[in-house]
Amino acid sequence: MTDYSKALPESLYLIGVGPGAADLLTLRAVNVLRSVDVIIAPRSSTASESLALNVVRPYLAAQEVVEHIYPMERDAEQTALCWKQMADLAVARLLQGKSVAHITIGDPLIYSTCAYLLEQIGDRIAAENIHTISGISAMQATAARLNAPLLMQNDRLMLMPAENLAAVEAALGACETLVIYKIGARLPKLIELLHRHGLAQSAQLVSHAEQEKERIFLDLDTLTGERLGYMAVMIVHVGRREWT
Amino acid sequence: MTDYSKALPESLYLIGVGPGAADLLTLRAVNVLRSVDVIIAPRSSTASESLALNVVRPYLAAQEVVEHIYPMERDAEQTALCWKQMADLAVARLLQGKSVAHITIGDPLIYSTCAYLLEQIGDRIAAENIHTISGISAMQATAARLNAPLLMQNDRLMLMPAENLAAVEAALGACETLVIYKIGARLPKLIELLHRHGLAQSAQLVSHAEQEKERIFLDLDTLTGERLGYMAVMIVHVGRREWT
Repeated sequence: MTDYSKALPESLYLIGVGPGAADLLTLRAVNVLRSVDVIIAPRSSTASESLALNVVRPYLAAQEVVEHIYPMERDAEQTALCWKQMADLAVARLLQGKSVAHITIGDPLIYSTCAYLLEQIGDRIAAENIHTISGISAMQATAARLNAPLLMQNDRLMLMPAENLAAVEAALGACETLVIYKIGARLPKLIELLHRHGLAQSAQLVSHAEQEKERIFLDLDTLTGERLGYMAVMIVHVGRREWT
Repeated sequence: MTDYSKALPESLYLIGVGPGAADLLTLRAVNVLRSVDVIIAPRSSTASESLALNVVRPYLAAQEVVEHIYPMERDAEQTALCWKQMADLAVARLLQGKSVAHITIGDPLIYSTCAYLLEQIGDRIAAENIHTISGISAMQATAARLNAPLLMQNDRLMLMPAENLAAVEAALGACETLVIYKIGARLPKLIELLHRHGLAQSAQLVSHAEQEKERIFLDLDTLTGERLGYMAVMIVHVGRREWT
């Protein structure tokens, strides 16, 4: 079994720091972060600070912190180039025998920038030196604030972005619980869609769950005119698929 | 904001203890568990011990521990009756001013017995005295052991049980990543189904992720004749749905 009591030399850690509260990190994440040599904190070019870095501040001391600014434009080539530069830096530190942690909000394998780093670094260091440490995702934090089970028995859950509303509409017929990320400006059309399917009363929304700006909306109709930004999660309880 | 530094009187906590390793609890879960008066640990009638209880043993001292044995039969009436009895016990302790934690493996809102307790207790205590503390799910732990992103960009993820193979087949056309729980005896037919869709090489399986018995199968064809039981998770990478 891998020793996670501290960060190991020449090891890369992809760490999810959870939704935003400092006590929602796992013990494993804290143990590695406290002892790691280098912390890479991604920050989008439109953000004034790295949310993930703010979350782990209580655990920082002598670690080298590298803020990595990545483009928000959805340009595959630009994105790959930006993460190749980050991979170069990480590999250089690893070759010096240092331990490196790349931190992200939520879980590192769910809509996270870790995927880009993995893509660029995968073949350049030994697989056994790459470790993913899971974090509580926004979906889980949202459901927790609502005390509402996501799945029981034979239920199916779909997690998807609001990007394509036709795909969201199709998903309503393919699962019992639908979790929608990246809502932003699509909110009014999304609510309209749920009304059309008689599901507006079966949906709740939490924005910035477990962060200072947290807001809980148990009734979507109270959301008129709200600007939610990127960190809102909607959970739609479409139905149940009980034991057969 | 709620104070999670310790368990509060008259409060019920639904706590996910993560996949099995003691360092995969969140700090919040540990803080509440260490200070809570009563811990309810569910155990199925076919299990010799409570897995969730084993995970939290390092954090136990003077707490009252109640093992709650529930039926594995898929009988809605029997299940409801069993959990009503558990709810009675929890409510009695809460009325004495005590704090109560119900622990489960993984996340308390993902295929967890917490849903049954919530159903039976929901109306009997004040909503503001019920707190869910998320845990790392088996899906996340499995993906972490594989260092494989679950979702990027516009991808959709479906999480479902293997119960109904026709539903699994339909899901292959409705998402980019399919996560399958509760595989057990359906494994050979599931592998056959993936071969038929040309997806057997795009799927991996981990059984008992982050537990002593953990086994990782990067190639499903090496699984012939394996008996996996209940705690196996398969991840099928059906495709990608990139930025548009």
